[in-house]
Amino acid sequence: MSASATASPIRPVHEDILNAAAHCFMERGYSATSIDDVARSLGATKGRIYHHYRSKADLFFDVFRHGMQMNFDVVTPIAESPRSTLEKLRDMTKTHCVAMIRTQHFQRCVWEGVELLQRGATTPEQREVLIELQAMRDNYAEIFRTVLEAAKREGIAEFESSSIALQLMFMCLNSPLFWYREREGQDASTIEHIASQCTVFALRGLGMKEELIADV
Amino acid sequence: MSASATASPIRPVHEDILNAAAHCFMERGYSATSIDDVARSLGATKGRIYHHYRSKADLFFDVFRHGMQMNFDVVTPIAESPRSTLEKLRDMTKTHCVAMIRTQHFQRCVWEGVELLQRGATTPEQREVLIELQAMRDNYAEIFRTVLEAAKREGIAEFESSSIALQLMFMCLNSPLFWYREREGQDASTIEHIASQCTVFALRGLGMKEELIADV
Repeated sequence: MSASATASPIRPVHEDILNAAAHCFMERGYSATSIDDVARSLGATKGRIYHHYRSKADLFFDVFRHGMQMNFDVVTPIAESPRSTLEKLRDMTKTHCVAMIRTQHFQRCVWEGVELLQRGATTPEQREVLIELQAMRDNYAEIFRTVLEAAKREGIAEFESSSIALQLMFMCLNSPLFWYREREGQDASTIEHIASQCTVFALRGLGMKEELIADV
Repeated sequence: MSASATASPIRPVHEDILNAAAHCFMERGYSATSIDDVARSLGATKGRIYHHYRSKADLFFDVFRHGMQMNFDVVTPIAESPRSTLEKLRDMTKTHCVAMIRTQHFQRCVWEGVELLQRGATTPEQREVLIELQAMRDNYAEIFRTVLEAAKREGIAEFESSSIALQLMFMCLNSPLFWYREREGQDASTIEHIASQCTVFALRGLGMKEELIADV
């Protein structure tokens, strides 16, 4: 969960701040969280955080951005691989679901960011950033839409509106965000097992035949 | 959408207040909504609202309670009918989904109430009410769990953990709460059509055979 300031170059040097902030935002929600809370949970000074972020909103936006980037990082290579539509769909959905569980604190912030945008209690400047972040999320969804529509054309999946199918698929795969709680002694196989049940439900929902999803 | 103060006895006499409040809470969220906002959207005085509710929290709780009560009102008669498990499951899921669309403003408050409870920025007194309301929601979910487990025993549905299956089923059926927008000229058949796609997805997800859900 912790990250060092000397992490590999693809990680932001202040990933520990993002991690702590994501946990605080998840526990208390955006409006009830202060920079003080984040500093305290990090055992750092507020100064260290203000060195990187002008405001709580900036920090929140970067948590959102980082959360989405982590999703792109694991899903894009599968989408761009030369694999079959069936393999891509199975692998992308399962990978997304595992990411929701593993990076739950970041993904809850993504969810709350979308809510903030819809509810509109934001400054025009914040709104601009949120719209840009929402576009990032939309682009991510489009990667899945492309594969979903290919699956429909190839007769692997069967649904009416691809927009509704996409929403329902994400609701299933994102579902652990709302009820999963990390427990002592839980290992990778527990997460794998939960993600597997959510993914099977989603793929069945998309009209895939049982023999194509049996070992997801 | 509007309701008169002389509505039938099962409706609270101040249903117009609840309706207006639910719309305000849905649009702005709990914390950004004031009693003033509700009064303004109702074209009433604050006094009229304070005649029924001591505080914004009390009003919000009653919106939650009323939202859940509307769900019980439509689903309980089906669950208690002498119909088969298959008929109950199909009818209860579809009915729930239609209710989510038709009473979206109330159900968004139910969702936000659960979030408020998890995030904990509440007074002890408010927490007590929220826990009671959460219990109401849990009791509602249990009606579905009973039918789901019967469906599994009878070989109509097939899933591993009934708790996870229940969560995933509700995520699908509740999904329109997050993306459905009422549009001019939309009639009952549009709502019916959207609910049908969500319900088919959920029932497929639960492992039901295509021939059992074809006409949902």
